[in-house]
Formats: sequence, structure tokens, C-alpha cells
Amino acid sequence: MPNDMDQTTDVFSRRESNARSYCRAIPALFNRASGSELFDADGNRYIDFLAGCSSLNYGHNDPDMKDALIAHIAGDGVAQGLDMHTDAKQSFLAAFDECILKPRAMDHRVMFTGPTGANAVEAAMKIARKSTGRTNIVAFTNGFHGVTMGALAATGNGYHRSGAAMDTSGVTRLPYDDYAKGVDSAELLEQMLADPSGGVDAPAAIILETVQGEGGLNAASDDWLRRIERIARDHGALLIIDDIQAGCGRSGRFFSFEKAGLNPDLITMAKSISGFGLPMALVLVRPEHDVFGPAEHNGTFRGNTHAFVTATAAIRKFWADDRFERELELKSERLTLNLQKIADLLPGARVKGRGMMKGVDVGSGELAGAICARAFELGLIVETSGAHDEVVKILAPLTTPEPLFDEGFGMLGQAVRDVSTGMRTAAE
Amino acid sequence: MPNDMDQTTDVFSRRESNARSYCRAIPALFNRASGSELFDADGNRYIDFLAGCSSLNYGHNDPDMKDALIAHIAGDGVAQGLDMHTDAKQSFLAAFDECILKPRAMDHRVMFTGPTGANAVEAAMKIARKSTGRTNIVAFTNGFHGVTMGALAATGNGYHRSGAAMDTSGVTRLPYDDYAKGVDSAELLEQMLADPSGGVDAPAAIILETVQGEGGLNAASDDWLRRIERIARDHGALLIIDDIQAGCGRSGRFFSFEKAGLNPDLITMAKSISGFGLPMALVLVRPEHDVFGPAEHNGTFRGNTHAFVTATAAIRKFWADDRFERELELKSERLTLNLQKIADLLPGARVKGRGMMKGVDVGSGELAGAICARAFELGLIVETSGAHDEVVKILAPLTTPEPLFDEGFGMLGQAVRDVSTGMRTAAE
Amino acid sequence: MPNDMDQTTDVFSRRESNARSYCRAIPALFNRASGSELFDADGNRYIDFLAGCSSLNYGHNDPDMKDALIAHIAGDGVAQGLDMHTDAKQSFLAAFDECILKPRAMDHRVMFTGPTGANAVEAAMKIARKSTGRTNIVAFTNGFHGVTMGALAATGNGYHRSGAAMDTSGVTRLPYDDYAKGVDSAELLEQMLADPSGGVDAPAAIILETVQGEGGLNAASDDWLRRIERIARDHGALLIIDDIQAGCGRSGRFFSFEKAGLNPDLITMAKSISGFGLPMALVLVRPEHDVFGPAEHNGTFRGNTHAFVTATAAIRKFWADDRFERELELKSERLTLNLQKIADLLPGARVKGRGMMKGVDVGSGELAGAICARAFELGLIVETSGAHDEVVKILAPLTTPEPLFDEGFGMLGQAVRDVSTGMRTAAE
Amino acid sequence: MPNDMDQTTDVFSRRESNARSYCRAIPALFNRASGSELFDADGNRYIDFLAGCSSLNYGHNDPDMKDALIAHIAGDGVAQGLDMHTDAKQSFLAAFDECILKPRAMDHRVMFTGPTGANAVEAAMKIARKSTGRTNIVAFTNGFHGVTMGALAATGNGYHRSGAAMDTSGVTRLPYDDYAKGVDSAELLEQMLADPSGGVDAPAAIILETVQGEGGLNAASDDWLRRIERIARDHGALLIIDDIQAGCGRSGRFFSFEKAGLNPDLITMAKSISGFGLPMALVLVRPEHDVFGPAEHNGTFRGNTHAFVTATAAIRKFWADDRFERELELKSERLTLNLQKIADLLPGARVKGRGMMKGVDVGSGELAGAICARAFELGLIVETSGAHDEVVKILAPLTTPEPLFDEGFGMLGQAVRDVSTGMRTAAE
Repeated sequence: MPNDMDQTTDVFSRRESNARSYCRAIPALFNRASGSELFDADGNRYIDFLAGCSSLNYGHNDPDMKDALIAHIAGDGVAQGLDMHTDAKQSFLAAFDECILKPRAMDHRVMFTGPTGANAVEAAMKIARKSTGRTNIVAFTNGFHGVTMGALAATGNGYHRSGAAMDTSGVTRLPYDDYAKGVDSAELLEQMLADPSGGVDAPAAIILETVQGEGGLNAASDDWLRRIERIARDHGALLIIDDIQAGCGRSGRFFSFEKAGLNPDLITMAKSISGFGLPMALVLVRPEHDVFGPAEHNGTFRGNTHAFVTATAAIRKFWADDRFERELELKSERLTLNLQKIADLLPGARVKGRGMMKGVDVGSGELAGAICARAFELGLIVETSGAHDEVVKILAPLTTPEPLFDEGFGMLGQAVRDVSTGMRTAAE
Repeated sequence: MPNDMDQTTDVFSRRESNARSYCRAIPALFNRASGSELFDADGNRYIDFLAGCSSLNYGHNDPDMKDALIAHIAGDGVAQGLDMHTDAKQSFLAAFDECILKPRAMDHRVMFTGPTGANAVEAAMKIARKSTGRTNIVAFTNGFHGVTMGALAATGNGYHRSGAAMDTSGVTRLPYDDYAKGVDSAELLEQMLADPSGGVDAPAAIILETVQGEGGLNAASDDWLRRIERIARDHGALLIIDDIQAGCGRSGRFFSFEKAGLNPDLITMAKSISGFGLPMALVLVRPEHDVFGPAEHNGTFRGNTHAFVTATAAIRKFWADDRFERELELKSERLTLNLQKIADLLPGARVKGRGMMKGVDVGSGELAGAICARAFELGLIVETSGAHDEVVKILAPLTTPEPLFDEGFGMLGQAVRDVSTGMRTAAE
Repeated sequence: MPNDMDQTTDVFSRRESNARSYCRAIPALFNRASGSELFDADGNRYIDFLAGCSSLNYGHNDPDMKDALIAHIAGDGVAQGLDMHTDAKQSFLAAFDECILKPRAMDHRVMFTGPTGANAVEAAMKIARKSTGRTNIVAFTNGFHGVTMGALAATGNGYHRSGAAMDTSGVTRLPYDDYAKGVDSAELLEQMLADPSGGVDAPAAIILETVQGEGGLNAASDDWLRRIERIARDHGALLIIDDIQAGCGRSGRFFSFEKAGLNPDLITMAKSISGFGLPMALVLVRPEHDVFGPAEHNGTFRGNTHAFVTATAAIRKFWADDRFERELELKSERLTLNLQKIADLLPGARVKGRGMMKGVDVGSGELAGAICARAFELGLIVETSGAHDEVVKILAPLTTPEPLFDEGFGMLGQAVRDVSTGMRTAAE
Repeated sequence: MPNDMDQTTDVFSRRESNARSYCRAIPALFNRASGSELFDADGNRYIDFLAGCSSLNYGHNDPDMKDALIAHIAGDGVAQGLDMHTDAKQSFLAAFDECILKPRAMDHRVMFTGPTGANAVEAAMKIARKSTGRTNIVAFTNGFHGVTMGALAATGNGYHRSGAAMDTSGVTRLPYDDYAKGVDSAELLEQMLADPSGGVDAPAAIILETVQGEGGLNAASDDWLRRIERIARDHGALLIIDDIQAGCGRSGRFFSFEKAGLNPDLITMAKSISGFGLPMALVLVRPEHDVFGPAEHNGTFRGNTHAFVTATAAIRKFWADDRFERELELKSERLTLNLQKIADLLPGARVKGRGMMKGVDVGSGELAGAICARAFELGLIVETSGAHDEVVKILAPLTTPEPLFDEGFGMLGQAVRDVSTGMRTAAE
């Protein structure tokens, strides 16, 4: 672990806002990254099981994307193209059309929003409201959709909600799948919507993540998802799948809703869509709901051409055929096995999640935090999730080679054992 | 002008959302850019008087920033660092501290928000509300602050407001400086706030642009700005200067409020802060209002390290001393002279704006649009602004060399003459 | 049935707004009323099982209240006293203190609001928000609390909600007791409130009716009510019991929550509080939440002195001891027996409600409406309730003498048989 | 002055909410009232220049209304008629049609709302929103429209606004006529509405009082009112005149907008509409905006039949011809003369208001309060108004006989002299 942070972090403590966060739990000064590894200024090496919160699904500095990007910059390629046509955007659209949309028989249009996930969510919510002429949007317990005011209304997390310091509006909250014991939340939603006195206004949209990444790796069942889609259709509401964290292969398929066979009206994408960790966000919208006029939802950085370059490379490299998806199936099983071993070390712990976004609910935020802190000391970057931060969440790059994967899990197992021992010792 | 757009734009028309905008008025497919010039796929060259809407204040692909960025990427520098400490962020903070904050005796902290201007505005509004415990925010006619729901409440433009398809809340609208004949809007604001029955709730903040870029290049007087700051102080409200378009030298100084001598509580920055057109946004916040807890306002792309690299290069290159500022003074005068010549061609036209964000109000959006369209045909990219798009707005790179500047104005003058002739001919 | 309505209703159809309602289903021109009987201009007599929607719990023109009121008016007693002290208000407060509050060991203060139930609900919601510093209020499916904007947010009925023609805010909707099969809604509420990511902001209050009069005579169990009170306490929320329809003896006790043993922080009263059907409304508020400053919630008609005169007479006549309550117990049983007989005539019908607010769910609004329409022809005034108007609701004056009660049920039984026969005939 | 209040007010202090207000400044226990006089329990007599805040325009217990009401009650007339047809409502509609609407060529329909002014305002705002499909409503500085959440959004008074303890929504605030020096507020409103970037959403309605009773007796000019009406028409907004305080003759005509010749789309009435101080409220709505369905805006006490009886008597007695109006003209002049004499006693004081709602702005709330307190000691009930309570407001019954009128002004003059002397003495 680096121990000259006092000096190196000086300007951070003097000048960076208190809002900074990851740097507190992960107190290193990083200067280099490659694949699934990060390096700090002291030359320490870390295995990265966080992957930029799933924005680095293909790892750091993928060599093909890197080459493409350097070539683009060196050749004076456009960096910032507003929403003008550029060759980079054209190539991206062609690749996305060919490798992603067409093979899935999706007729969605691509809307380039401001390059943050929250901006894509805001755009999707606005589209749903404009297209339906309604305002209410149904969102779920533990959903996370961003912290700008429109998106925050849909976000369940109370800490983030309180940051608004005012009421949010336009969203009705329902329990997520399997949230409350004995409650069939799809049935409850259907009943409340069908009831003329149910007090839930006819919704413009239902927004959800198929796997709640921030909310604790809660994975909805395919059946529940399909019933929610049916409810949306029956009640004239659009279905918005927020695939910002679960998309781009994280769940095992390119889109997280493919397994359940959904056909969402609106899909939000960000995080790993650029492939390289560069800011980029999209809303995929079915043509009949492509209702915004020119620049009605605008923003300066909708044409981050560097991101288009790497995104194109990522799509052509990983999604031109189904090899990567099949690979992910095996990796997902390997992840479950490794996580089960971790869970077995802790009484009451259980494996949660789906595909390559899984974790272990260890029962308390304190314990999960201690495990991650110890893991960092051992050279592994891993984070918690969930309402009480009670889940040790694995978001390793999807491309992590087996040896590194195993090495990372070795560290994690060690961390769990160390923390357990420490707790037993402390208790004695 | 390219004439094979039918083919090249095929994937755009098939797959890009109707929300696309600039590409309609500027129907070229760009593939290369350098300094103040853009090139399309057919090899046509355009002089750029739009500069990515002021996000390319130092022009396209500045060689020093380009070298720094390529070196960073080639060396496997971190691309996406969440809000962890990276050497790139450290260097940026050091440069910003040294060249920008310290020389201006500013004690502000730097909050890295999601990399869009709207996100910075949302963060600033949330901070003001949290810090004051109030919710109302005073904004002005013709203000533009972004289109996510929180920011959109402050934005005056009705077209963008209607995109929300629901009511926005938490904002009171007042007339901007010199908006209504005979109305001293600072005095009106003071009277309404001081009046216990004025019906304007005690505000958390007053938000404004010192020059309204989208709103028609309306430049507030120094006196009005100082009185608004005084009103904010007197009524316990924070002063938020939205310097997203007018900052980074566009007004003639690094910050647009320096001339009036303001000391805003919160400053939003985006557009040209990265120097290279890469997505990056900041809120500068006075320490006593740095009230967010860790990650209370979060977002994946707060650590766009590529942008930090170019931002650092930009600051050290242009703002280490006052040479660039002095240069801008001369350029600003030259801009006024050139614009006055344009205005003289059109009866009733008048020059508006301040520093390097000036334009000519030609009286109607139709005329302004025709001029810009003709200019594009002649090889000049220039856009309109204002409530009726009635202002031909010049946002040339601040670094535009004199010959290019003059060449661009030659094209613009030609466009004005061509359009005037066409209109006279049509009228006959 | 009157058949000269064309003439008599002329001015109604010409000059009264379309918003008029009861007069459509009950097309008579009434001119006299006494006890449980109404008379129209043609001399027809009707038994009243509607009782001004429970605002005439002691029947029409109770002779003792009538005498007191005439004496007051004849003696030039104050009619309108704003919120000044009057002898009439003093007498009311003394009687209410002595007969209602003291015997129940209630320390509540009496707030005279504008004389509508909705106004009392608005006041209670404002008090809860001011006292707690929170804004969210939990309300339930099928709750009805009035149609002014604050109260309407809590009202579940979609028809009324749509009358706002804009979004209401500040309320979270949860399922009422026994609303959804298998859902323990108190447990669900507790889980969502306890969950830091549950997405339900900490509430200022939980508002509910113990029996939902408009919502279909859904009666919450004592256990559920006590658990909701416990949840309110645990989460720092006030408990508001809206006793506008169920109070003043309608449920069998003076307050509807007495049976469950609740001690609400805020209680709203209206309808029968004046005893005579005169406009009057109250909020009872525990001293620690009596947070409004003088006239902070004001209104011209808070001092409807005529209502105070009859209210005093009503309280002293019916609530000085427990005789009336014991009488109601027997009447309630008699009501159930009579309703069960009605229910037995209709396959699938079931008796609902509690105390003297019970009815028969006949399965469809069409059938319930037909029964009420036929009953009116036979001389009985009775109305429907419920989300689909599917419940034939009996709100007879609590003072209805047995013979009239039986006569009324005779008419209702006849109506049911006539309608059933008609339906069978039509089906054949 | 009564000095046994300790005993008599005991139950008030123990049991009445802190929200009580007038009883603090006017600490008597009233038990009788007639014409323009009130009497307390100790036999003291007071001249009433408050008239139930203009809800007793025809004085207390008008003998004709009183007789009609007693006859109605004695004859078992319906007291509470919901919104069913009653003879009392029919008579009221006929009288209102004949004496008020027809002579003024008004085609408005009468909507009986819940019997409070705020309820009428809520209904009018909802109608405007439903009819136009818009939500924004323009209201003015110092406007007072009630304190339920919908109406409160339009009310300017900050003390009342803060009672909501949450944000209100849907209203844009503009300066009233002659509010700010040099500001033509109609022109400002027109400019902001006409400006596509003015940031004021297209309004459903503009709501205003022609004379602001609570706001300090600010009387709008006829020209301003007509321009506002024109602006409403031009921008597709309805014009709502809130005539709750200024209506029923208070301004000199039956409706306060008659002098300016307006034809409002919606008119709210309450206070003196019943003539006797009984709770009653109306919305007059032009047929094309009579858009509510049956009971879409409902409420239990819309059929306060007692109020209909006295209202009918009042209309037939005072408004069957123009004699009363002509009388009011003379009285209004007499009021001005008397007020000017009062104003002459105080340096800087000035007479404000219109018709029979005038007052003297004495420059400070402290002074105005002292004058009213001394007047009460002398036997005159009079109150303050205005943002700072700086206006001594005269709302004497319109029927006050000259001797009483003069006697009251004698007391007021004495109070002013006493307070002035006291202040001079204290200053010495």
C-alpha cells in the first residue's frame, strides 16, 4: 500500500470537494491501467474487480480500441462533433446497426444524449411523457437511475434522494420483484393500476433494471419481467429498461433483457457502451416513440467522437458474432462457483445477481466494507452494493483472464478469512 | 458542398433519432479538424465560427494537448478513473489551483460532476438547496442551463421546456438585465424579495449567465451583476454563475464574472474546460457550501482522465500568465469591428454580446437562418441564437489566426450580401 | 315520483354547472325534511338512507337543535364570528371538552378550519408537514380525503384526481388493509420505510380512514390500524385519522378509531359535527403538534356560529353519556341482519363495512346503480360507493326509528327483487 | 372593555388551537349582533368596521333575511341538501339569474363549490387547467386567494405560504398594477408571455383581485385590468376574477370588475354571497368552460340551504334595481372624505382602495396596529391589512347608517389622536 499519500493527495484535500468518494475507500494514486490491472504511483499493482462500476467491461486500455483511438487523434479526427455527422459517428451507427440491432430484429432508433447515464434516463423519461401525454412513471424499490432531478425521482436510494434537498415528483414507487415476503409485486401493480380508485395515475412508463446493480444485485425473474412488460402494454405505458449497468454484456448477453425476451420501448445505455470508459450515453427508442424535435433534448457533448471510435472497435471486436456471449456463459458459472466458495466462508451469506454482475450478501455493511478494505490491502479493488452496502459486488472486466480471475478470488478469500479471524479475535 | 449525402447519411436517417439537430443545418459529413478548420469526407474545408458551441475555445486538435493525450493513451494512462485519485486528476487540480484559483484569490473547491454542463447545473442547484435549506431558485428570462429536469426548470426556452412534457418546479422567473423597457429588474427582484407578500419564496440561489449565449448574446452590465450579487447576499441566497458557455476565456477573461468583480458562491463550468472538446464539467464551490457527503451527487464519468490531461495542457498553455487575456482584448475589438461592418449591411441590425461571444441581431430568425445557410455554402460554419434565432452568433475559436478570422468574415459578409440581394430580388 | 321536473328544474339546467351530481340520480325537488324523511315539492315522501352522506347522522331538523338554532337567530345571536370568541363557540368547546375529549382522556386542541372536510384535511396535512419538517404523506388505495389540491393528492379516486388536470405532489400511495390478496400492507409499508433504498421518503404523516366510506366501505382491522399507528410512531410520522365520514357515531362510537384504541396525532372532522348538516369542520391536534401561528391557516367561515349552536345541542343530547353508543350497537346488528338478507337475494353479494356504515357489494356498478334507481322510485334514497360504484351503501340517520328502518329495507329488498327480475327477464 | 376574560376564555385557552387569531386583537366574548353593531357578554357595544372581513356586507342579522331563515327552519325546510335540487336552491338561482346575471348580459353558469372562498378558488383553478390543458397560472404580488394547497400557490403572503411547509406549484408570480416604480406590469407580462424564451409557460389562467383586500387595498386601474384581460385572451388563458372580498357590492357595484367592463371567464364568490355571513361559495363559469363532469369537484356542504335562503333574500332586497348601487356611490365618497381626515392627522399617510373597501396607509404595521387596538378600547372594531399590516382598513357593512358611520369615524379619529399623542409623549 502506498504510504506517501499525504504528499500526493495534498491538492485533493485542499481543492477537491467533499463529494469525492471512491478515493476514500481506495486511497491510492493511480497512474496506469491495462486489462484487469491498475497500477499506482508507487508501482503497486491491483487487480480490478470494480471495472469502473461496469464502465470498463472490456478492461482498461484494450489494445485494439487504443490503437484505433490513437490513430484517430493523430490523424486530427474530429474530437467534439456536437450532433453533426462525422465519420466516427457513422461508423458507430453502422456497427451498432449491423452487430447489435439487426441480429436482434430491433427497430430502435439511436438517440445520442449527453454522455452520462443520468442524462439518458432523463431523456427516456421525457420521451415517455411526451409520447404518452402522461407524467407518472412507475419505478421500484432499490432502483438506481442517477441523481439529476428527473432521474433522482426514480432512484430509490435515500442518501442520494436527500441530496436534492427538495421533493422530486412524477414517480410512483412499487416493490421490485421478490422484494417483500409473500408480495407478488407485479400482481399488486396490476391491481393498483386497474383500480379506478387505486390512486396510481396512469403511467407514462415503467422504468426498471433487470438486475439492480447499485441496489444490491437483485435479479428479477424472467417471468416477473415479462409480466411487467405485459402490464405496461395493457395500461398504455412505455417500458424503459435502464441497461446502463447491466447492459453491454454484463448480464451475459449484450442487453440484459434478452434472456427474458423483452422488447422495451426505450433502453438507456451508458457506462461500457464506449468500450473504453469514455463518456457516452444512448437512448434506444422505438420509432413510434421517437417524438423529440431537433435538439428538443440537447447538450454539448452528444458528439464525443473519441468514444464513437472506441465503441465501434468494441462492438466489432466482441459482438460481431456470438463467441463472446458463449464465453460469458462459462465465465458466469465460474463466477458463481468462486462466489459460492466465498459465501461458504461466512455463515448466512448468499450469492446474488446474474451473469457477470454477481456478489455475496454477507449480511451487514460493516462486514462487507471490512472485507473490501482488507482486499484492497491485499491488492484487489472490489466494492460493496445494496441498501446497507451489505453485498460484496464483483464487477470484474468481462475479459479478465482466468489466472487473474483466480488470483483476484484468492485475494478476496484471504480478505474474508482475515476479516473473519479478526472479528473472532476481537470478540474473544 | 458534398452532394453524396444521400448515401453517406443513410445510416443516420435510418437509425439516428429525430432529436439530431445541427446536422440538419450543417449537412456535411466531417472527418477531420484542426485549429479553426473542419474538413468533410469530400475534402471540403470549412472555417469554424461555431467552435462546438464554445466547447472548442482553443480550436480543434490543439497540437500540445493532442501530444499530451496521445502520450497518455499510449502509456496506458488511466482512461476512466471514477472519482479515484489519478495522476491526471492531480495534475489538473494543481494547474487549476496554481493558474486559475490562486491568482484570483478564490478559495473554491472543485467538484467533478458528471461530464455535462446540465449535470454541473443540477449539482449546483442541489448544493444551494442543501446548504440553505430552501428550495426556490431565481432564474432569468432567456437563461439557458440545460435540459435535465432540475436544470430545465431554470432554462427559459419554451421549446426545451416543453420537452419535459410535465411541469418543472422550484424556480421563479425574473426579467434579465435590460430585458423590458423601463424595468430595472434588479430593483424589481429586490422589491419582490423584500416584500413579505411579494409571493417569491426566499431563494436558495440566484442563477445566471453574465452573457446569455443561447438566449441571444444578452450581456448584463457590471452594475446589474453587482446588484444581483448584493441582493443574493442580503437575502441569504447563493449566487450561482453558470459559466459553461461564457467561461474559459470566451468573455475575454477566464471567468466571465471577473470584469464585474463578483465572487460567486457556486460556478458551473463545462464546454471548454477540457480544452479539447472532451466531456468534462465542474462545479466550483466555496468551502462553506461544500455540503455534499461522499458520492451524494455521483455519476460514473466524473473521472474522464483524458479530459484532465488536455485540460491541464490547456490551462498551462493559455492561462499561466496574462498574455492570452491581453490577446483576447485585441481580438474582441477586432470582432466588434467586423460585426459592425456586417450590421451596417442590414438596416436595423445591431451588434450584441461581450468579449469573444458576440453577434449581430438581424431582426428575424428567418433572415439569420438564411445568412447562416448561405455562409455554410460558402464554407463557413456559423449559427444563430436568441429566442427567435434572430442573432447571427460568432463563437470562433479564441485562437483563430487573423487571416482565417478575416477570411471567415469575408464569407459572412458575402452571405449577408447574397441573402439581401436574394430577398430584394424575391421582393421585386 | 315528481313529473313536473321539466318546469321546476328549468333554472337548474340553464344556470347550474354540469358539476352537479346527486340531482341526476335523485331527480326530485326537495322542500322539507324531518328525521329520516325527505319530502319533495309534489308532496312525495322519501325515506333517507343517505343522510347527506353521513352529514345528517341525527336526521333532518332534529327538534332540539332546531329550537336552539331558532332561539339563537331570533335573539340576534352572532351568525358569523370569524375566529373571534363568541358565546356559541364557548359553549361548543365546553360541551366538546366535557362530553367528548375528557371522557376519552384526549388532550387534543380544537382547530376550527374552513367549514369543509377538505379544508380540515388540508390543515392537518400542513400541520404534519410543519411539525415534522418533512413533506411526504402516506395515503392508501381507495382513500377519499377531498378534492382541493393538497387533499386530492391523498385521494385515490382517479376521476377526482383527473379533475386537477395537473400532477399532485407530496403523497405516496400504499395498499390499504386487505387490499391485495396475500399482501400484508402494514408489513410492506414498514419494509419500504425501513429500507434506506426503499424509495419512500420519510413521511410527515400517514393519513387514513378506518372505514373507507367513498372507497367502498372497506373496514380496516383493529390489528392493522394498531400496526400502522406503531409504524407512524417508529418512523417519526404523525398519524392522521380522517374521521369526516366515519366519525360522530357513524362507526358505532363517537370516533371511529376508539374500537382499535388508537391515539391519533391529528383527527379531521366535518360532516355530522354540527349535528344539523351545517357547514363546520375541525382538526383535533395533540398539543405538541399545535404548531400553526395565529391565522397561519385561515379562512372566513371558521366561525359559523349557527353550526356551533346545533353542534352543542347534538353533543349534549347524544354524547353526554353512553346510552346512544349502546343503542348504536343494537342498530348496527340490525343493519347487518337486514343487509345480509339483501345480500342473500343476489348471488355473490356480500355485506361490507362497520357500525352504521355498511353496505352490500353487489358485484357491479351497473347493478348497484339499477337497485338505487329502483329504490328511489319506490321512495327510498340510497346511494352507491366503491371504485366501481359496486356497493349499495346504507348511511341512514343513526336516529332512524325501527319502523322507518324496516320500511326502508322493505323498499330496498323490493328494489333488489325488481331489478333481479328485470335482469332475468331481459336475459330471457 | 370586559375584564373577566380570564374566566370566560378559559376553555378557549385550554382547548382552542394556537391558530386562532382575531380573538387576540379583539379580546371580547361576543354574544349578540345587529346591523353594524356587536355586543359582548358584559353588555359592551361595538361598532363593526370589519364586517366579518366583508362577509357581512349587509350587516348582522338583517331582519328580512332573518325572518326568511327562521321561517325556513321552523317549517322543516331542508338544511343540508348535498347537490340535490331544493326549493331554496331553485329560488336562489332564479333570483341570481334575474337580478344579477341577466341584467349584466352574463351567460355564466353557477357552480356551487364547497362553502369556502378557497374552495371556489381551487375549483376555478382546476377548471382553467382542465379547460385549457395547461397548468401554469399567473398570479400577482400581494394577491390573496386562500390557504389550501392549490389556492395557496397563488397567494402572495409569505406567512401563509410558509404554513404549507412544502413547495407549492403551478403558479407564476408577476407584479400587480402599480407595484414597482416605473414598471408597467401588464407590458412586462405581455413581453414574457410573447417571448419564446421568456420562461413563463403558456398559462391556463390569470387570476387576480381587482382590489387586493388582504394585500393592502391596492386597486388596479381600469386600463390595467382591461389590458390584462386582453393579454389573457391573446395568449389563450382564462381570466379568473377572484371577487370573494371585493364582490357583492363592496367595490361599489355587485361585481368589482363591472366598472372596468371586464367579462371574466371564471368568477369566484364567497364571503357576502349568502348575505347573512353563512358559509357559501360559488364559481361563475362561462358555458364553454363548464367542463367538470358530475361531482368531479365535489364536497359535502355544497347545498347549505340556509345560506341559499338568506342569499335569495339579500339579492332580492338589495340588487333587484340600481338603488343600492347609487347609494353606495354616495357612501363611497363619504368614506373617502372621512378617511382623508384620518390621513391628514398622520404625516405621510394616504388613502387607498376603491368603493367601500378603502383604508389609510399609515406607514407602519406597528402604528396601524396601535390605532386599531386603541379603537377597540373605544368601542370600534377595525383591522389592518397589507404586507406589513400598515393599512387601517375599513370594511364597514355597506348598510351602515350615517350616524353610526360618523360615530365610528369619531372613534377612529380619537384613536389616531390618542396613539399620536402617546407616541409623541413616549418620544419626549
